[in-house]
Amino acid sequence: MRFVIIGGDAAGMSAASRAKRRDPELEVIVLEQTHDVSYSACGMPYALAEPERSMEELVVRQARVFQEKTGLDLRLGHRVLAIDPLTRTVSGASHPGKPFSLNYDKLLLTTGASPIVPEISGIDHKGVHLLKSLEQGRAIKADLDPGGVHNALIIGMGYIALEMAEALRSRGLSVKMVKPNPRLLPWLDKQLADRVQTELETNKVELLLGTGVQRIEQHRSGLCCRCDGIDLEAEMILAATGVKPNSELATKAGIRLGAGGAIAVDNRLQTSNPDIYAAGDCAEAPHLVSGQKTWVPLALVANRGGWAVADNVTGGQTVLEGIAGTAVFKVFDLEVARTGLTSQEAAEHGFDPVTVTITSRSRAHAHPGSSTIYVHMIGDRTSGRLLGAQMVGREGVAHRINAAAVALQNKMEVKRFSQADLAYAPPFGPVWDPLLTAANQLQKLM
Amino acid sequence: MRFVIIGGDAAGMSAASRAKRRDPELEVIVLEQTHDVSYSACGMPYALAEPERSMEELVVRQARVFQEKTGLDLRLGHRVLAIDPLTRTVSGASHPGKPFSLNYDKLLLTTGASPIVPEISGIDHKGVHLLKSLEQGRAIKADLDPGGVHNALIIGMGYIALEMAEALRSRGLSVKMVKPNPRLLPWLDKQLADRVQTELETNKVELLLGTGVQRIEQHRSGLCCRCDGIDLEAEMILAATGVKPNSELATKAGIRLGAGGAIAVDNRLQTSNPDIYAAGDCAEAPHLVSGQKTWVPLALVANRGGWAVADNVTGGQTVLEGIAGTAVFKVFDLEVARTGLTSQEAAEHGFDPVTVTITSRSRAHAHPGSSTIYVHMIGDRTSGRLLGAQMVGREGVAHRINAAAVALQNKMEVKRFSQADLAYAPPFGPVWDPLLTAANQLQKLM
Repeated sequence: MRFVIIGGDAAGMSAASRAKRRDPELEVIVLEQTHDVSYSACGMPYALAEPERSMEELVVRQARVFQEKTGLDLRLGHRVLAIDPLTRTVSGASHPGKPFSLNYDKLLLTTGASPIVPEISGIDHKGVHLLKSLEQGRAIKADLDPGGVHNALIIGMGYIALEMAEALRSRGLSVKMVKPNPRLLPWLDKQLADRVQTELETNKVELLLGTGVQRIEQHRSGLCCRCDGIDLEAEMILAATGVKPNSELATKAGIRLGAGGAIAVDNRLQTSNPDIYAAGDCAEAPHLVSGQKTWVPLALVANRGGWAVADNVTGGQTVLEGIAGTAVFKVFDLEVARTGLTSQEAAEHGFDPVTVTITSRSRAHAHPGSSTIYVHMIGDRTSGRLLGAQMVGREGVAHRINAAAVALQNKMEVKRFSQADLAYAPPFGPVWDPLLTAANQLQKLM
Repeated sequence: MRFVIIGGDAAGMSAASRAKRRDPELEVIVLEQTHDVSYSACGMPYALAEPERSMEELVVRQARVFQEKTGLDLRLGHRVLAIDPLTRTVSGASHPGKPFSLNYDKLLLTTGASPIVPEISGIDHKGVHLLKSLEQGRAIKADLDPGGVHNALIIGMGYIALEMAEALRSRGLSVKMVKPNPRLLPWLDKQLADRVQTELETNKVELLLGTGVQRIEQHRSGLCCRCDGIDLEAEMILAATGVKPNSELATKAGIRLGAGGAIAVDNRLQTSNPDIYAAGDCAEAPHLVSGQKTWVPLALVANRGGWAVADNVTGGQTVLEGIAGTAVFKVFDLEVARTGLTSQEAAEHGFDPVTVTITSRSRAHAHPGSSTIYVHMIGDRTSGRLLGAQMVGREGVAHRINAAAVALQNKMEVKRFSQADLAYAPPFGPVWDPLLTAANQLQKLM
């Protein structure tokens, strides 16, 4: 039996390796359009922050090693252009243009996501960058390393944009950020978002919120970004305005799309064509809280999805429960985390959201080095259920959110969650963990 | 109605404040035998570590403030010697010896726990200390502050003993520790305990495991602890060999005792006498995993218990689910955490334990500053349930354990827990959180 995988990043390589491990007789062919497999995309801002680090460190396992150790048939520079479900064939062109065609018994689409390219003129000027592929990361590094870039403009203010702001500041660049929406991190509770904004401003990142971007011009002195009411000059511009699922191949093959334009899958990751699976950033997933399909491109979901498909094409029965939308990022000295639904999402899904925002401490009463932790928590008045949690603080946020994520997976009521037996010692938090204080307060309002 | 509380620490003061808040008409009388209320006992090793810190910082709220702000009747220096359940009377002596007697409608026993005093001669010599009450903490500080103590011996190697070893080392003392059991932290998986041992030795704490203590002698040059095969000289000796519940008053009043000699209570914290409640370190609690009563004296359990009793004596109906035995402590640069049952406890409670110990990393592949995280996980072969988890590492352990604690509260199977949607970003862990890697590995063995 032949298992063909389109895309050799997190989901694809996880699926390939695990399938081969489970069934060494299985023929596994991975078609990857670039020459990079299995690299840590999330690590790029951190590698870019330090001149002495090479982007190649981010490659978890090199293609050559994969092939030697696993017996996979890994074909780099192979771009798939079409899938024919009737003949079970994929076809495309290998670098630099040689056509190929392959039959499959089972096919996995792990085509990932692509950065959204702002539709403005000048976005293709030299010095304007996107950041998703390792190749794009290398291009940014090549511009930064000679030391000639002193100021940068970032279009967008999402996770990646903020991580890049920190990376560029740590390299000594002056950094401005611009976006049309007047709210920073609109999914984050206002009080928490304000704390993040203060952190950025303290670190001398200039934020131009509520400012539309018109076009980018190349002047002799460098780039100029013409925005609403202001012209912003920069030697480097990074467009980081989000990503979209790569679902074109699937669409052309008549495969059904779902949430957020991602490929529709069931909880075994099968698409509308039973021989074709999809996983990772190109596929949708059921949300544990809303019960509805959603699209959240995150690394763990991709890796887990790859494994599940490997199980399911090799005779197993792995059913995925869904995602809670748990995410964390660091920006300067702050940790920002979320899980579950926002209050607005909760209302959109028919819940009756009640929210609370509290402040607590990262260490016990009188323990040195303590800092403020902000917790925003969302419950459902009708059912009493916990629907989501958000946290911001200098320490103790990134892993704390996981307790709430597991609570969501178990559809816990806020009242029961407030009884969770969480760890306490003075260096790590107050006796009542910030999550418990939030749950106690939220309960009173429900 | 009169609500009398015996003991003014975590559970007692939590109950008193909340009861008064819920029902301002209620007469609330707290009888505390010392002159300290509501101090952070857990913070004592940390305050002792730093000469410039006062032990008084550990008082969360002073007695005077309590009385002024809450309308409580707080009687310090009042030692209760007897409870007469028939006449609903408590009687005792106030400092310095004046007898008193009081009627109650509802009574709460929050008598706490006391350090186990090793039954060896010389334990009462000057320079030999226990550490449980704030007064005992002040005595240690008074000995340390003049700077004349250069070496210390700690009898016992539990949480408090280890925290004190760190505190005394940070003050520049040479520290030896001794105990009869040849295993350090016998509840901790061997590989994890070995890591803790290395940490202690790296920080020049000399461990005499498997060494019985015979007696303490006072010589002109200082104290000498005669142990099996060795004499250990020290200027200060700290006996930290565990605590026992203060349940004598309850026993004398005919109230039933339960697990670990603690006062037996139901899930509303009512004792065998319906007018009398017990909470905190003197009371037992149901274990969420075993379903059996257990005795785990910890701060959060005490605070939560106090609240529950306050609710239940003021017309509410707060039922406590139980405890997972979640705990964490810091020793030098290590975080050590546990939740649920150990493999041995699991076997004793009729489970069929399967265990795994894995190592993972505290940060993502190639992310600077990463260190090893050890995870030991216990599952039940018969039911597939997660039974417990233990972790040791330099960072990212203290709050990570909480995800497992919430999983235990929900009686999750290891397989379901392995699907938890935990947070990922490169500075905070690998894509597969160490807990998930452990769960994935454990599943294979089940």
